Amino acid sequence: MNYNIVPLNELINQFSKLPGIGKKTAARLAYSIIEQPLESAKQFADALINAKEKIRFCNICFSLTDEDICPVCKSEKRDKSTVCVVEEPKDVLAFERTNEYYGVYHVLHGVISPLDGITPDKLRIKELMARLSDGTVKEIIMATNPTVEGEATASYISRLVKPMGIKVTRLAYGIPVGGDLEYADEYTLTRALEGRNEI
Amino acid sequence: MNYNIVPLNELINQFSKLPGIGKKTAARLAYSIIEQPLESAKQFADALINAKEKIRFCNICFSLTDEDICPVCKSEKRDKSTVCVVEEPKDVLAFERTNEYYGVYHVLHGVISPLDGITPDKLRIKELMARLSDGTVKEIIMATNPTVEGEATASYISRLVKPMGIKVTRLAYGIPVGGDLEYADEYTLTRALEGRNEI
Repeated sequence: MNYNIVPLNELINQFSKLPGIGKKTAARLAYSIIEQPLESAKQFADALINAKEKIRFCNICFSLTDEDICPVCKSEKRDKSTVCVVEEPKDVLAFERTNEYYGVYHVLHGVISPLDGITPDKLRIKELMARLSDGTVKEIIMATNPTVEGEATASYISRLVKPMGIKVTRLAYGIPVGGDLEYADEYTLTRALEGRNEI
Repeated sequence: MNYNIVPLNELINQFSKLPGIGKKTAARLAYSIIEQPLESAKQFADALINAKEKIRFCNICFSLTDEDICPVCKSEKRDKSTVCVVEEPKDVLAFERTNEYYGVYHVLHGVISPLDGITPDKLRIKELMARLSDGTVKEIIMATNPTVEGEATASYISRLVKPMGIKVTRLAYGIPVGGDLEYADEYTLTRALEGRNEI
C-alpha cells in the first residue's frame, strides 16, 4: 500500500489510541471528520483541549469537576452521611444515571493490586479516612468492581472503617436485570441464590 | 442527574457525533482523554485540525490527498489504463489494503439516489468522462456498493462508457471468504451459484 497521506494517518493513529477503537474504526472516524466542515473539527479540537485543561478532581470526593468542589459534593440535596466508594470517576456517572442514589461519592482512582505495584497508599484511601473522622458519615457503600482486586480493596477498606463504628455495605451480587439465567455464570448464580429475598 | 460538568459533557457530545459512537461509548472515550496527559489531548486536537485543513481531493481521481495529486495517481508503478470507480474515498483505502490492485481510482463522492436529490450531475461523473476521453483508459471496474443505488449508478455509468469502446466490469458477487453458507442470504447464494467457476 503506497497510499500514505500523513495528516490522515496521524488522525487515524490518534483515534486508534482510544480504548476499544481498532484500526478500521479509527479510519472510519477519521474519514467522518474529513467529511465534516472545518468548523466542526475545530469545535471537536476545542472540546478536547477544554475538557483536559478545565477538568480537575473534586477537593472532597476526587471525582471530576470544573470547579473546586464537584456538583454532587456542593449540592445541599445530597445526603452527606452516605458515601459510595468507587474505583474511577466514570463509576460516579454510572450511579448518577440511575437517578436513585442521593448520597455522595469517594473516588479511589484505582484498586489495590500489588502485582501492578498499586499499594493502598497510591489510592485516595487516606483522604477517605480523613473524611470519615468528623462523624458526619454513617455508612459507606463499597462499590468497587466485582473483580478480585475490587473485592480485596473493599475488604481492606472495610477493615479500616468498621472499628470507627461506621456501617460498611457492599453492592448486592445477583443476576443482571434483563439477563438470561442460561448465560449467567455459576458464581453469579450462586450469589443470586444466597442473596435471595422473600417476595 | 445533577452531575453536569460542562467541558466534560461538551467532549462527550463531540464524540457521540461520530458515526457508530453512542452516548456510553462517547463517555468512555471522553474519560480516557481526561486520564491522558494534556500533551496527548493537544496532539489529538492538532491532528483533527491538521487533517481537516491539509486534506483535499486529488485533482485527477478525487480521492483524498494532502498534495494536488494523490499518491496513487502520481505513482509511475500504477497502471493508468485501469480505473476502479468507487463511491467514497474510504473505499480506496479498502482496495489499497488488499495490496492486489495496481490500477488507479475514480471517486464519485456518492451514488445516484433521486429520492435523496442526488442526481448524476451531483457526482464526479463528468470528471470521469473527461478522464476517459484521451484513450489511455482501457477498462473501468465498477466498484460501487452492492446496494440498489450502487447498482443503478454502476449501470448508469456503464451505459455512458460502453459506447466509447472501453471495457466495463463489475466486482464479482459471491460468498465472502471465511463466511458461513448457512448465514448467506438467498440473493448472495444465487449470485455465487451463477458466478461459479471451474476448479
